[in-house]
Amino acid sequence: MADPVFFNVSGPYSLKELARIAGGELSEGADGDALFSNVAPLAEASGTDISFLDNKRYIESYCTSAAGACIVISALASKAPAGMHLVLMDDPYRGYAKVARAFYPLAPLEVNVSDKSSINETADIGGGCRIDPGVVIGAGVRIGEGCWIGANTVIGAGVTIGNDCRIGPSVTLDFTHIGSRVIIHTGVRIGQDGFGFAMGPQGHLKVPQLGRVIIEDDVEIGANSTIDRGTGPDTFIGAGTKIDNLVQIGHNVRLGRGCIVVAQVGISGSTSVGDFAAMGGQVGIAGHLEIGAGAQIAAQSGVMRNIEPGQKIGGSPSQPFREWMRGIAAIEKLSKKKGS
Amino acid sequence: MADPVFFNVSGPYSLKELARIAGGELSEGADGDALFSNVAPLAEASGTDISFLDNKRYIESYCTSAAGACIVISALASKAPAGMHLVLMDDPYRGYAKVARAFYPLAPLEVNVSDKSSINETADIGGGCRIDPGVVIGAGVRIGEGCWIGANTVIGAGVTIGNDCRIGPSVTLDFTHIGSRVIIHTGVRIGQDGFGFAMGPQGHLKVPQLGRVIIEDDVEIGANSTIDRGTGPDTFIGAGTKIDNLVQIGHNVRLGRGCIVVAQVGISGSTSVGDFAAMGGQVGIAGHLEIGAGAQIAAQSGVMRNIEPGQKIGGSPSQPFREWMRGIAAIEKLSKKKGS
Amino acid sequence: MADPVFFNVSGPYSLKELARIAGGELSEGADGDALFSNVAPLAEASGTDISFLDNKRYIESYCTSAAGACIVISALASKAPAGMHLVLMDDPYRGYAKVARAFYPLAPLEVNVSDKSSINETADIGGGCRIDPGVVIGAGVRIGEGCWIGANTVIGAGVTIGNDCRIGPSVTLDFTHIGSRVIIHTGVRIGQDGFGFAMGPQGHLKVPQLGRVIIEDDVEIGANSTIDRGTGPDTFIGAGTKIDNLVQIGHNVRLGRGCIVVAQVGISGSTSVGDFAAMGGQVGIAGHLEIGAGAQIAAQSGVMRNIEPGQKIGGSPSQPFREWMRGIAAIEKLSKKKGS
Repeated sequence: MADPVFFNVSGPYSLKELARIAGGELSEGADGDALFSNVAPLAEASGTDISFLDNKRYIESYCTSAAGACIVISALASKAPAGMHLVLMDDPYRGYAKVARAFYPLAPLEVNVSDKSSINETADIGGGCRIDPGVVIGAGVRIGEGCWIGANTVIGAGVTIGNDCRIGPSVTLDFTHIGSRVIIHTGVRIGQDGFGFAMGPQGHLKVPQLGRVIIEDDVEIGANSTIDRGTGPDTFIGAGTKIDNLVQIGHNVRLGRGCIVVAQVGISGSTSVGDFAAMGGQVGIAGHLEIGAGAQIAAQSGVMRNIEPGQKIGGSPSQPFREWMRGIAAIEKLSKKKGS
Repeated sequence: MADPVFFNVSGPYSLKELARIAGGELSEGADGDALFSNVAPLAEASGTDISFLDNKRYIESYCTSAAGACIVISALASKAPAGMHLVLMDDPYRGYAKVARAFYPLAPLEVNVSDKSSINETADIGGGCRIDPGVVIGAGVRIGEGCWIGANTVIGAGVTIGNDCRIGPSVTLDFTHIGSRVIIHTGVRIGQDGFGFAMGPQGHLKVPQLGRVIIEDDVEIGANSTIDRGTGPDTFIGAGTKIDNLVQIGHNVRLGRGCIVVAQVGISGSTSVGDFAAMGGQVGIAGHLEIGAGAQIAAQSGVMRNIEPGQKIGGSPSQPFREWMRGIAAIEKLSKKKGS
Repeated sequence: MADPVFFNVSGPYSLKELARIAGGELSEGADGDALFSNVAPLAEASGTDISFLDNKRYIESYCTSAAGACIVISALASKAPAGMHLVLMDDPYRGYAKVARAFYPLAPLEVNVSDKSSINETADIGGGCRIDPGVVIGAGVRIGEGCWIGANTVIGAGVTIGNDCRIGPSVTLDFTHIGSRVIIHTGVRIGQDGFGFAMGPQGHLKVPQLGRVIIEDDVEIGANSTIDRGTGPDTFIGAGTKIDNLVQIGHNVRLGRGCIVVAQVGISGSTSVGDFAAMGGQVGIAGHLEIGAGAQIAAQSGVMRNIEPGQKIGGSPSQPFREWMRGIAAIEKLSKKKGS
């Protein structure tokens, strides 16, 4: 499946081993010793591939797939085509993620500090790091072990980075402390001044931005996203939070643990978001709000009020999800009326 | 018109020659041997300039313009001021584009590979290329002839680029195959991991992204836009598609040929867009949808359903264009009612 | 308050001196000789800190704060806790900005031209500049005195920059003239081709973009924002205008003086915005419009018509603010109706 120019496949693995990696169980009659050499989508898989079914959209592909094995929930076991070996588990997508990583493990870092990088002599770089050409590292920077700093990335004085981080090419980091196993994609900007001005007709006066950005472990941040540093309090991204591309995080924003922030979301200054809240693409959230843990905000919503924990909302300005849906239905009715 | 610090003007050209370049015809009585030395907007043009009329907003400027010549549709020939020479054609803007290019041809590349670039010894770079300082090119990269790679651009291992491409400064390319005559503006990020996680309360597990990005001939991609690579299938941008600035294209998205994607659009994963579809600024499209060929989506629309070929839609969530317009009218009526 | 790893605090200052710096007056009985060593938010301040109250949200913190001094409007003087010294003025936030800058002055530039930069021999760089590693400066570029050009920034031929500018790392400047005291944050792209095509089924033909970008004094532009150059006329950003992160400014746009453009706004080509207009986050403005001076556009609005000076508007498509609010109320009513 994967282009060998870019990806090196491992394996083969026995079905038994794949079930163990996935964290699932073999279905009755499945041959644990059968060997599989790759992952593939249901529609394209052959007998030596293992696939998965996670989205109801693809159930027809499942019923007719030539995949030799499939990771699936047990309720769908009976719909499998004859001869397909099954790995049964409650969360097939998580199982697939693990199996796919087994076939395509991350390549070990080619440990090297490029002689075309510019590293301040007071910086402290841990063992096993890869520092690419054009990287600029300022005074007092501390980088842990096993990190990859991509080409042309610029790390300002005093920044710290934990272990096993992957910082993409052309990133800018300033006034920032970063945990371990953090992934920052190419073009991300972290720690620049927030948008803070004392505004007035005599001109907008810049307010010093005296805080930092704190990024906990296991965070991932998508390409060209921007995270401004705090005004005095810090901007804070909790452990395990995942941020997509082109997202804007304003100064003093606090994101809890495990949040999901889809592409092009903007969160205004001093807003606080609880653990495991999820924001769809292009959502905008006003400043100084409290978004409860586990809140779910539909794409393109405009949030101007606090949100209760676990609440589902949508619309601009946003409403509780059901009211939003009813409002849409009412408008659609109006818009189909003659003469209106 | 154009600042000579930045632009070198060619010419002069005779009207006859300009009509040939534009692909139009001289109006009756126009002097084919008259010489013109520049292009200029109607309101600023003088007797040695050639201008064009394409937008009805500017018809007054046309009627009073001092331009020596103008490219215009024949239906408006009679409204030209006395003494203005006309080049008549159905698509004056296309004619203008060609004439303007004649006056301001692209400068030939200064062929050079900077000694401040870092090029892997296994990379294969065609003749007539310009590689600027700070460029980093990985193992096995193949670049065709006549390409310009801007300063500080980073090209990952295995990427291929066709002929006559212009890759701006500070671009990142990974896991990507690019056709010929492609223009990629500064700060574009192509081929990074898509936003793929097996989500759950025990943490969001990263799903390996095993696909590529395929970009066909004559595509143009605007500054700071991001295109994620596929999960296994590829992300695909069809020939001649034009993408504006700060656009987000998710993993596995397929854009057909000749699509128009205006600034800050976001297209979610696995959505497929037909040939010559057009998306206004800040449109958001949900994942796994089919957008028909020639569909036209108004700015800021939020698309949550499939769209038929040629359909015009607007709104968030989006509706057929006329229903959207009627809904807006109905809301405006409501909002003007007393007491409501 | 501020992390000494990143910020060096100046002072202490006497209250008298701080009142002078702020431009306020001491309240009756305040001890002008008392010394203060730092700024801090109301909730965290101690007796040697000076704080400020600007937002009614924080009035409770004010009434119970342990801050030794506070900048506040005189109407709230009587609510101060006993023993708090007050600096009274009409615009406490502006006063705070000045006081905070006194405690945290910008560090003087470490004047240096990195030997890892690439500067064309015809470029003219003023005294007192700092040019970081990886910077690429083209032919004929002129940079004034006291500028800081951040690492890996690329400045194209002919660009000019005034005095005392701070250009962040990884910026791209082309076809641009920049005034003095301009701040351009990391990843900003200025002067690339606008999105201009003569569109048609035979392919979209690129229209030469023959204008420039003119940026006046005291402008600030946020991280990863993009400003396209004009088509022939220039794109123009008036003095003192402040632009946030991830903003898109199309070709030929004119922004007046002192405009506020919040994150992720998109302004389409040839639109003109009057002085001191303000646009909330994610606003989209169509092309060829006139936005009056002092107009205020709510976040996420979609502007498709001209706006009068001083008008407040909201919604997508946008309406006068009050009508928008009434429309929202009407929809909310509909969406709560049974059976609808």
